[in-house]
Amino acid sequence: MGNTFGRLFRVSTFGESHGGGVGVVIDGCPPRLEISQEEIQIDLDRRKPGQSRIVTPRRENDICEIISGVFDGKTLGTPIAILVRNQDARSQDYNEMAEKFRPSHADATYEAKYGIRNWKGGGRSSARETIGRVAAGAIAKKILKSVYNVEIIGYVKRIKDLEAIIDPNTVTLDEVESNIVRCPNGETAAKMIALIDQIRLDKDSIGGVVECVARNVPKGLGEPVFDKLEADLAKGMMSLPASKGFEIGSGFAGTFLTGSEHNDEYFIDNNGEIRTTSNRSGGIQGGISNGENIIIRTAFKPTATIGKEQKTVTRSGEETTLAAKGRHDPCVLPRAVPMVEAMMALVLCDHLLRFQGQCTISDRFF
Amino acid sequence: MGNTFGRLFRVSTFGESHGGGVGVVIDGCPPRLEISQEEIQIDLDRRKPGQSRIVTPRRENDICEIISGVFDGKTLGTPIAILVRNQDARSQDYNEMAEKFRPSHADATYEAKYGIRNWKGGGRSSARETIGRVAAGAIAKKILKSVYNVEIIGYVKRIKDLEAIIDPNTVTLDEVESNIVRCPNGETAAKMIALIDQIRLDKDSIGGVVECVARNVPKGLGEPVFDKLEADLAKGMMSLPASKGFEIGSGFAGTFLTGSEHNDEYFIDNNGEIRTTSNRSGGIQGGISNGENIIIRTAFKPTATIGKEQKTVTRSGEETTLAAKGRHDPCVLPRAVPMVEAMMALVLCDHLLRFQGQCTISDRFF
Amino acid sequence: MGNTFGRLFRVSTFGESHGGGVGVVIDGCPPRLEISQEEIQIDLDRRKPGQSRIVTPRRENDICEIISGVFDGKTLGTPIAILVRNQDARSQDYNEMAEKFRPSHADATYEAKYGIRNWKGGGRSSARETIGRVAAGAIAKKILKSVYNVEIIGYVKRIKDLEAIIDPNTVTLDEVESNIVRCPNGETAAKMIALIDQIRLDKDSIGGVVECVARNVPKGLGEPVFDKLEADLAKGMMSLPASKGFEIGSGFAGTFLTGSEHNDEYFIDNNGEIRTTSNRSGGIQGGISNGENIIIRTAFKPTATIGKEQKTVTRSGEETTLAAKGRHDPCVLPRAVPMVEAMMALVLCDHLLRFQGQCTISDRFF
Amino acid sequence: MGNTFGRLFRVSTFGESHGGGVGVVIDGCPPRLEISQEEIQIDLDRRKPGQSRIVTPRRENDICEIISGVFDGKTLGTPIAILVRNQDARSQDYNEMAEKFRPSHADATYEAKYGIRNWKGGGRSSARETIGRVAAGAIAKKILKSVYNVEIIGYVKRIKDLEAIIDPNTVTLDEVESNIVRCPNGETAAKMIALIDQIRLDKDSIGGVVECVARNVPKGLGEPVFDKLEADLAKGMMSLPASKGFEIGSGFAGTFLTGSEHNDEYFIDNNGEIRTTSNRSGGIQGGISNGENIIIRTAFKPTATIGKEQKTVTRSGEETTLAAKGRHDPCVLPRAVPMVEAMMALVLCDHLLRFQGQCTISDRFF
Repeated sequence: MGNTFGRLFRVSTFGESHGGGVGVVIDGCPPRLEISQEEIQIDLDRRKPGQSRIVTPRRENDICEIISGVFDGKTLGTPIAILVRNQDARSQDYNEMAEKFRPSHADATYEAKYGIRNWKGGGRSSARETIGRVAAGAIAKKILKSVYNVEIIGYVKRIKDLEAIIDPNTVTLDEVESNIVRCPNGETAAKMIALIDQIRLDKDSIGGVVECVARNVPKGLGEPVFDKLEADLAKGMMSLPASKGFEIGSGFAGTFLTGSEHNDEYFIDNNGEIRTTSNRSGGIQGGISNGENIIIRTAFKPTATIGKEQKTVTRSGEETTLAAKGRHDPCVLPRAVPMVEAMMALVLCDHLLRFQGQCTISDRFF
Repeated sequence: MGNTFGRLFRVSTFGESHGGGVGVVIDGCPPRLEISQEEIQIDLDRRKPGQSRIVTPRRENDICEIISGVFDGKTLGTPIAILVRNQDARSQDYNEMAEKFRPSHADATYEAKYGIRNWKGGGRSSARETIGRVAAGAIAKKILKSVYNVEIIGYVKRIKDLEAIIDPNTVTLDEVESNIVRCPNGETAAKMIALIDQIRLDKDSIGGVVECVARNVPKGLGEPVFDKLEADLAKGMMSLPASKGFEIGSGFAGTFLTGSEHNDEYFIDNNGEIRTTSNRSGGIQGGISNGENIIIRTAFKPTATIGKEQKTVTRSGEETTLAAKGRHDPCVLPRAVPMVEAMMALVLCDHLLRFQGQCTISDRFF
Repeated sequence: MGNTFGRLFRVSTFGESHGGGVGVVIDGCPPRLEISQEEIQIDLDRRKPGQSRIVTPRRENDICEIISGVFDGKTLGTPIAILVRNQDARSQDYNEMAEKFRPSHADATYEAKYGIRNWKGGGRSSARETIGRVAAGAIAKKILKSVYNVEIIGYVKRIKDLEAIIDPNTVTLDEVESNIVRCPNGETAAKMIALIDQIRLDKDSIGGVVECVARNVPKGLGEPVFDKLEADLAKGMMSLPASKGFEIGSGFAGTFLTGSEHNDEYFIDNNGEIRTTSNRSGGIQGGISNGENIIIRTAFKPTATIGKEQKTVTRSGEETTLAAKGRHDPCVLPRAVPMVEAMMALVLCDHLLRFQGQCTISDRFF
Repeated sequence: MGNTFGRLFRVSTFGESHGGGVGVVIDGCPPRLEISQEEIQIDLDRRKPGQSRIVTPRRENDICEIISGVFDGKTLGTPIAILVRNQDARSQDYNEMAEKFRPSHADATYEAKYGIRNWKGGGRSSARETIGRVAAGAIAKKILKSVYNVEIIGYVKRIKDLEAIIDPNTVTLDEVESNIVRCPNGETAAKMIALIDQIRLDKDSIGGVVECVARNVPKGLGEPVFDKLEADLAKGMMSLPASKGFEIGSGFAGTFLTGSEHNDEYFIDNNGEIRTTSNRSGGIQGGISNGENIIIRTAFKPTATIGKEQKTVTRSGEETTLAAKGRHDPCVLPRAVPMVEAMMALVLCDHLLRFQGQCTISDRFF
């Protein structure tokens, strides 16, 4: 259980970091969308290990194969299965971890829950699981782009205490991709890269905040009550490995304001559209998109697996120490950017289809 | 859609703030649990309007009726329907809002989505909807208490910039309930109350942060990947009215630490149990509970509906101003406390049943 | 669990036959549909006890109250809760059944599953549960009628060995409602009524077959694989109390033909539409509607509760006999007709919304 | 949508008959179950084409690969992905079908729904899709066998008008597998085989009825109301390709009896267990298993694809004729047997986990 996301655009991922491979089945994709392996690969390449010196050196090309659901370059409306084989699985690095639990990692809790775990790597809790999300997210992005010209752009907003000034309303994908840390502020990006370089040498790790904006989202996406758009976004982001916090619009900072300071006043724009003069709501009011930019932030903790020696325990209940071997990210944020974008896309695409399902006949018939 | 929460302990709420009433249907409750209307009423009374001078003066007794699913004081295993009638519905206060959208409220987005809304009050977006959640949460709490002695305690951690020092590991319900703002630090509570009093006079509103702890949660609750325990908690909290942010354990602050500072090291306690020396994880690792206290925080924005005049627009697209009439909370946090507890209980209870469903036969047979 | 039906047009029923009442919550109804209590009541009246001499004499007006989701006579898009109070609950008739299990009824299995049951009547297994389905079905019918002029007509096809000749392509609701047994063949209907009269005097019961046709269903409803339209119809019908069999189109009889005899050949009709010359498929091919009339049949066993003495056992495990008191239907079929129609409508409406959700954007954008 | 089955033991299939392959993802499997590729292959071999002269000669080894979810021969509790590559795909046989719709097949309805279809074979509507079901069913069978010694045995009960006398209470798998038509009555089996041989020569096809029994099913599986055990079984069976009817226990024939003839009277057996003297209920009462053998029958129509010439139409709306090329089953029933067993196993396993989820804590704590 727990490996499926979405109600109408349903995404089910599978696979462990070491084993036959990882992948995804997407059920509910609209038919006749043009999609190619190459388009999906773009985001997978932004996610893959070994892409730069500041991420894990594990070598995986992460080339995806579309097994089903696409015919003559178009979606069939049937399940799209996508598979990525595992290649550079140096499981011997993990022998020690067969016995020792990595602090703040999922080793001990998987063992507590299931009484068994694939200790050759992170198993199901590995960030390799997100390959399926990113592949599905690429398709969701294409749908959103085709239908409403929706743009989804994530970027590194802060690494440890290095925070970048970025305007979510104007930032571009090219700016994000202009450096290896995916912070579209060149000056801060350089400092971030230097910091990660240093942390890697220290055999330590750091975290930070990824911000993500979705522009051109139509009004009316999101459901009242439990499936509020921000609730599904929160779930999506907090389901990513290493995430510890989520906020939308003004977020935690907004709680320092009064209502009269915080509320987004309405006006009528030149096209006769209802708009807001500010956007502390982050594009969502009452769980439903209001047409303004959706802006969210997700906090990622420092990577749990580090080379420094730490106190831990063994499966058999003895206290010991562990200095992790294996190849790990000193900072997950550069690779987390496409993951955050993918979850944003999956949530928006699902709610787009849900809106179509419930509300479109009313305009025509009621 | 979107009005159901949980996979096995399934809660579906219904009802608008003005109309026949609000309520909940709970499907999947284990049979033979002793439960009474009086037990459920306790939390409803903590949520109801008019309970103190710092909340909305709308007078609703919010007395619940158990329609089905309980027989001779015990649950039948069949759906438990609970109904609360609306009483003090002064809809005339809302006549102006039939035409004018309240800034940062759900009026305009509901209209955009559905082309119709119950403008006599907040309709479905009203906090009255949470009556069903709180009633269901009371049952979930009782299950968790009966099975694992789980204690769930929420409290106001911060109002605007007034932050209280509270130890989540030792705080008691009595301390929380010792004052009308539900901040278990008497000194800060007094300041908070004074601030809310002042804000109410200003016809303005304020927000803050509710913290919630769950103690004695067994190891092993939560699913890998999308239904991580913290992901479902995030969704639950971000589905509450006015919430803008969520964090667990170290949260956003944890991103300022290095991995070696942040990781929770393991040790073996006197009972031979694997424990952690710190709890920056907030009781969850890899999406699965680790037996430590689960600690989360939710940010609530200042109430959108305020008496101060603000710029807004009408349904027909004209710019205007609005100074809201009606009876509203100057600060939702005292009443949000039982809502937060309810969502915590619903998530944990659902995952308890999910654990039972997937994993219990393995211990006996595999 | 198990009390919700449908993916997008989601129906959750609640309530026991003796207790506060029974009802339904409908989540996902399109907004702005005009609907009134009176429209819903029409089908409830066709289902209610005491409507004629050949059904149970229990007196229930079954007047429904719309609690939520409708405003100024139109649906809001939010959950529609509908409640019917129980009135004529002569629970003393059931005292004996607190101890003795009725043969072929749900008493013993509920007890085995839950360790508890509401023995004052059939509890959750009572046909009163179907009130919620019929109420929801009335709304689904109105949607289908409004959007595609879909007509759903059920009728009694056979009672015991009395089978009526009826043309599903031309039968009308008026014909069905022209007699109390709901068999639109007057001659056979008279015999059926006489047979039921006799069986009632014998303190026995009989069953039969309800046929149901849906006309003007558009092409394209139904999903491949598990949620084939006939699979969801089968589930819907087999979830009705006392149903023992389901078939579509040629059904079991079709297995006596060869493929060349059975296949429905295609032709192009005067409107240029692809049609079939025969309809052994029953309007569905490969799980998807083909535009021909959908024709299904459901077998209902003789009512389990009878006045004749039968061998049974007690809760405490002793053999005994039981001649049921209480007021029961000698034949459920006249009242099963609106239930079958309701389930047909719920399945079609759900799949209509699902089609809207997945496929409508493709026509416009891909 | 529509490609997932089950609530807790969730099975999602993917793949078209011609393309990268077909497979399944199983989410929610209990951990630590010993399972091997070889065990799964046994049922796949019973399903595969080319296994005997009376089935399609398409040559597919259908060797499955377990991609994920199993480690050191045991289930991890994480998703089990299983893949079977397509091999002998002679798509040229289907060129004509790119334009012409096969009568009573899914070609035209897929085209109507999606506006596109993979015409190289049956695409998603091909019986190859059931590979995923059968693979998942093999795992479900093993769970049921391990936990309750549940035996699930399907067999051909009737081919056209050749009906075999078989006692479901004593039939064995060896008897079923003793001949290529899977009818455990040797005499009738021989006639069936001769009939299929003849029909193949006639370029025609035939159908029939598969019966399936589940023995040693514990009491208490199945949910009230919509997810009655027989409702989920009906859905499972009616989701199989070519199925047109479903019945349980006495089925349609039971409607010719009176209640006093039909009811299953109770007695106490030598072990003090409540049992029934007859089993017209087919092992389920009120939607919940009663411990007696579950006995169901499914009607399969004659295969739609036949070599005889038939009238049909083209995509572009012209009338024409078609004599299908390609390799097809003259009778699907021998290969349908493992499919029926798989669906029975999937339903029972899902409800076993659901029972564990909802009801097991009650015995221990309430």
